[in-house]
Amino acid sequence: MQILDGKRCSEFYRAQISEIVKKIIAGGNSAPRLSLFMIGDNKNSELYVKLKEKACRDAGIETRVHVLSENASEERLKEMIYEENADPETAGILIQLSLPGKFNESRILEFMDPARDVECFLPVNIGGMFLRNDTKIVPCTPLGIMKLLKYYEIDVAAKEVCIIGRSNLVGKPLALLMLSANATVTVCHSKTRNLAEITKRADILISAAGRAGMIDDKFIKPGAVVIDVGSSRVKKADGKYEARGDCDFEKVSKVAGHMTPVPGGIGPMTITMLLYNTVYNYILMKKLDITMNI
Amino acid sequence: MQILDGKRCSEFYRAQISEIVKKIIAGGNSAPRLSLFMIGDNKNSELYVKLKEKACRDAGIETRVHVLSENASEERLKEMIYEENADPETAGILIQLSLPGKFNESRILEFMDPARDVECFLPVNIGGMFLRNDTKIVPCTPLGIMKLLKYYEIDVAAKEVCIIGRSNLVGKPLALLMLSANATVTVCHSKTRNLAEITKRADILISAAGRAGMIDDKFIKPGAVVIDVGSSRVKKADGKYEARGDCDFEKVSKVAGHMTPVPGGIGPMTITMLLYNTVYNYILMKKLDITMNI
Repeated sequence: MQILDGKRCSEFYRAQISEIVKKIIAGGNSAPRLSLFMIGDNKNSELYVKLKEKACRDAGIETRVHVLSENASEERLKEMIYEENADPETAGILIQLSLPGKFNESRILEFMDPARDVECFLPVNIGGMFLRNDTKIVPCTPLGIMKLLKYYEIDVAAKEVCIIGRSNLVGKPLALLMLSANATVTVCHSKTRNLAEITKRADILISAAGRAGMIDDKFIKPGAVVIDVGSSRVKKADGKYEARGDCDFEKVSKVAGHMTPVPGGIGPMTITMLLYNTVYNYILMKKLDITMNI
Repeated sequence: MQILDGKRCSEFYRAQISEIVKKIIAGGNSAPRLSLFMIGDNKNSELYVKLKEKACRDAGIETRVHVLSENASEERLKEMIYEENADPETAGILIQLSLPGKFNESRILEFMDPARDVECFLPVNIGGMFLRNDTKIVPCTPLGIMKLLKYYEIDVAAKEVCIIGRSNLVGKPLALLMLSANATVTVCHSKTRNLAEITKRADILISAAGRAGMIDDKFIKPGAVVIDVGSSRVKKADGKYEARGDCDFEKVSKVAGHMTPVPGGIGPMTITMLLYNTVYNYILMKKLDITMNI
């Protein structure tokens, strides 16, 4: 059983992204900038924004973080997003979700210039991804999964790929990417009957159910590649919390051929792809003669 | 074996659409209008446009057909599409594809006001369909398949649905609709290995491969529902051409529980859904207090 090490793979990609940023700056350009919005008091959001800030800094990407109180008006938020839209050095805008209940998330996301939507949240961008093969920006988690498989030279073409979960962020866009890469794709979800029977057919199983430990050895075809996107917050015996994947690692690892751990699997890849998208987007926006063939 | 009769089902829906148009007019509104563009000399396009015109007329929907020669400039075409965009009585715009080679199809489609894109061709609309469950406009063929199944009271929830074909017009949007309807969905295509083994698992098999007769009894689970979206032009013994589906009807019908014929299956449903979308769109645009719960 081989561990698919998302941390190692992230380091590999981040080093390359870093090199590209250096090349951009050496060409007389300013560093690409990611502008983040954090609204309201939310410990999780704070943690994620900090992680993203640090990852950007390490890669040479500039960040600008706007922190607004929950009392901020939608009008004010719109104004600030519009300012970022108009800034030629802002390569990406990220609005940290979830927003406090009083805000209409999809309406606020729509304030973003689609050309700066580095998470591929807007309909026009997800539609572009759906329709084209010469995809521009792709959602970070599905992209991270594809890049992890590429890093480990696991080819998906003509393989049976099974995805558990049909979310807008993972399951559905990943299904599209896998189809473009010539996989035969099955999407399962909470209403699927005989789940284990279906997942057991898969050469590559991706679980994005968000239910800690729901997948054990009975769900796995011997030798399969297993990607665990789950990350549930679970209370341990000592009262502390930890992130737990969808897979029962001990049981699954006895049957699978390759497997991502939680933590240290898809988590770091998602943030790495945010860096990737920001730099890629900057190159597109500025029409730089730099290819990002990584 | 039950035939899923697309003609009968179409008549059922068209009668209801017709009633809704009458209600719209009775409310003091003008009839919804579909504006069609046909560019260049193409016998197939001519035939399709005529079919659509007739179907609209029969349902009480107004049509306006713009016929342009292949020599027309993109600029002129843009101007004409913009005029339709600005017309408050135009509920839908349809640009009959394929266009002569000199035209850039996706650029020309983008001239359309997304609110009038009754075929759901534009990225922003297909993205909206991808992201939302409160879908507005949905591509005609996939919608026609869902409505045919509804008409015959065939529930897709928790069923294994297999789709052959990953096109932007059928396979991919149908997969999304099926997922929203709680089916477990597999998408196969030309690169799929052991196709018959995979399709044989399906409670509901939809073939949109476009290869006449490629599906026989060995691909079918006994009792399955089989929807044939294929329509290949095949030369008969007498030298004439006919439309032929993906399924070998004689062989498949011995194993399947329900099956659409070709012709008379999904073909008429696609045009019916164009009428549906046009009227539905008109109701949305004019914010009429009429529901289209059919």
